[in-house]
Amino acid sequence: MAEEQNPVGVVDRDRRLVSLSRRGFIASSTGLVGSMVAGHAAAETLADVPPREDGTDLSGHSERSKYTKIARIPEAGPGKRNIDPGDAINSKTPLDKLFGSITPSDLHYERSHSGAPDLDPALHRLLIHGMVRKPLVFNVEDLKAMPSISRVVFIECTGNGWENWKKADGTLTVQNTHGLVSTNEWTGVPLKFLIDLVGKESNSRWVLAEGGDAAGVARSIPLTDEILNEAFVAYGQNGEPLRPAHGFPMRLIMPGFEGNLNIKWLRRLKFGDQPWMTRWETARYTQLQANGKAIQFQLRMETNSVITSPSGTMVIKPGYRRITGLAWSGHGRITKVEISTDGAKTWKEAQLGSPALAKAQTRFQMDWAWDGKPTRIVSRSTDDQGNVQPDRKSFIAATGTNALFHYNAQQTWSIDETGRVRNVLD
Amino acid sequence: MAEEQNPVGVVDRDRRLVSLSRRGFIASSTGLVGSMVAGHAAAETLADVPPREDGTDLSGHSERSKYTKIARIPEAGPGKRNIDPGDAINSKTPLDKLFGSITPSDLHYERSHSGAPDLDPALHRLLIHGMVRKPLVFNVEDLKAMPSISRVVFIECTGNGWENWKKADGTLTVQNTHGLVSTNEWTGVPLKFLIDLVGKESNSRWVLAEGGDAAGVARSIPLTDEILNEAFVAYGQNGEPLRPAHGFPMRLIMPGFEGNLNIKWLRRLKFGDQPWMTRWETARYTQLQANGKAIQFQLRMETNSVITSPSGTMVIKPGYRRITGLAWSGHGRITKVEISTDGAKTWKEAQLGSPALAKAQTRFQMDWAWDGKPTRIVSRSTDDQGNVQPDRKSFIAATGTNALFHYNAQQTWSIDETGRVRNVLD
Repeated sequence: MAEEQNPVGVVDRDRRLVSLSRRGFIASSTGLVGSMVAGHAAAETLADVPPREDGTDLSGHSERSKYTKIARIPEAGPGKRNIDPGDAINSKTPLDKLFGSITPSDLHYERSHSGAPDLDPALHRLLIHGMVRKPLVFNVEDLKAMPSISRVVFIECTGNGWENWKKADGTLTVQNTHGLVSTNEWTGVPLKFLIDLVGKESNSRWVLAEGGDAAGVARSIPLTDEILNEAFVAYGQNGEPLRPAHGFPMRLIMPGFEGNLNIKWLRRLKFGDQPWMTRWETARYTQLQANGKAIQFQLRMETNSVITSPSGTMVIKPGYRRITGLAWSGHGRITKVEISTDGAKTWKEAQLGSPALAKAQTRFQMDWAWDGKPTRIVSRSTDDQGNVQPDRKSFIAATGTNALFHYNAQQTWSIDETGRVRNVLD
Repeated sequence: MAEEQNPVGVVDRDRRLVSLSRRGFIASSTGLVGSMVAGHAAAETLADVPPREDGTDLSGHSERSKYTKIARIPEAGPGKRNIDPGDAINSKTPLDKLFGSITPSDLHYERSHSGAPDLDPALHRLLIHGMVRKPLVFNVEDLKAMPSISRVVFIECTGNGWENWKKADGTLTVQNTHGLVSTNEWTGVPLKFLIDLVGKESNSRWVLAEGGDAAGVARSIPLTDEILNEAFVAYGQNGEPLRPAHGFPMRLIMPGFEGNLNIKWLRRLKFGDQPWMTRWETARYTQLQANGKAIQFQLRMETNSVITSPSGTMVIKPGYRRITGLAWSGHGRITKVEISTDGAKTWKEAQLGSPALAKAQTRFQMDWAWDGKPTRIVSRSTDDQGNVQPDRKSFIAATGTNALFHYNAQQTWSIDETGRVRNVLD
């Protein structure tokens, strides 16, 4: 069963890394004494352990502990925090407080243009029309009777990282800088199956996907082989029905592509032979370049990674600690994450969670002993298509700072002599 | 990216299965007309689709839709439903209402002996002692600083299926019959890492794991290579901290073994050279055989599967519908699920979700057109160790009906001429 387990590391009595092994622990590690990580020596009794406790009755749902404080942060845009709830346009996932690669459904990031409607599934319909032989309307029960796929994929707002385009706010957490990406297991009907039902005309190379929210977000999607093979209309999220903020009762899932293409509250798919040039693709989601021209239809999300611990606003102590984070790529599977603990001078390969799925967030970690001196830590990821996450300098040299979207430069955290971790640009 | 997608099926104009293909759809399917699944013909307008709706403000958590009715069922034991909450000893996952393979954290089944305490993580401690060179005490923050693994695994109560040992209650749903199994992504510290810290003595071949609930559930666990390589102490569940009902702040995860070994509210691990013979292994979790003798330490969960739709109490209509369900094995990975729609006379291979992970639930599905005549449907699974789920007759012949645990006979659902689905024994 080695394939399902991450490799693990071993530290010595000075809290320094002794060995990383894909097979487990080295034999010499059995000579370790216990105090080097963070254990507390004990007498061989239960005296230091609190007594057992009686519990509450079993129920229909297991709620969170009253000691677990975990929530998204609603924001009104880059640098726009501490706002009235009505001004929020997104709500960010607390990456610094999560483990593994799955995001809890209620903490998956939200980005919407007219709030989150709770549509009645008995009334909601999906119209499929345009260049098809037989336009059809479906409700969500129709979809549930069809063949389905389930797939663990990340969805990322194209604005993720936008806090760091021009300057570094040292008060930001990783939730502020990178909280517009999340990973869920989505379940639904392959777009290809629906296409077969309506009989798409062969010269239709685009589809318009429109949402049922008041804003009516609508995007033209090119019908490439990749999209035809991978897109699906989802009704399930981490095992349960979609939540209203995530498109209940149905949404489009476009693995690897801009979050806004994963149309929520999906009400129609219209097939055609050219893009519709909606305001979402002429005004909103275009990418302003250094030369003043804008790119349209820059749809794929990039190779990315971020260290989630230690990260912005944390305070660490000298000695052993694990560095961990998340990596993802719209191109495919993460194959390598490297970490530098000396400001990008030298790099070491981190351990990757297993299985590392294509177009899903992958957990990485590395053992580290901080010597107490100021330094900078940074990660960079590589995917199975050979894409390497760029450093900030080369990223800005190529893109300029006029743009708002598709920021995927390496994220650097500085650590000062007091152990305080801060967001910096490089 | 074919490896991440399930294969899908195609039905013809009479709603009969035309083709199952691992590569997608056959070319001939493009001649299909749309009405055969459950779509509704439409004019090429939005007239039949409800208008768009404004939404509520974005927030810190995405709550469920008011239209989503989904909850576990607390029960007091086999056949003991409609009880006072204080009498509940378990609470079952609604398998008939879920998709994919991940169980939402708040719907993971619960089984406990003195309710669910919400322990204060600042006070809670894990003592590791016994035959070790250096006994140690850890809190959950200590664990979070150590190397971790994240793994998607099923946990199953050894009593799952106990409703069907002696007779079939035709009013049961699949939640009643099989709702004591769930799958989450768990994150924590490998047992091996903790063993290296305390310096286990080489002649220690057992560990006692004890919970911090009032019942103090405690089990002796043999330190086989498999368990040493795979067991871990978890603090994370589907990305977030454990919920109180699932062991907050820490629990043992024993992939593939009886749920009661996955000790919740873990307060100590004591190493020794023989089992402790706690009352949980001398009285509670022993398996009474046909000859009146009991088996102790029958720890591994078996190769199992169940069709979740259609399933008990559902009413179906003639024509096309998808059969879907879940398969799992404590021995390893599910490699095959077969479905019979004629009462176990003939079998067809179902499609498996991908990736099919070892010791995790795997989704299966098959296209089917019901002809409206009474029949019986049943599934049987096979794992990568060659174990095949037994039919009820051979299972009972081998085990008798005195036992209460480890029921893994094939589950048969009968369908009468009105389309009503009922739990039957074979």
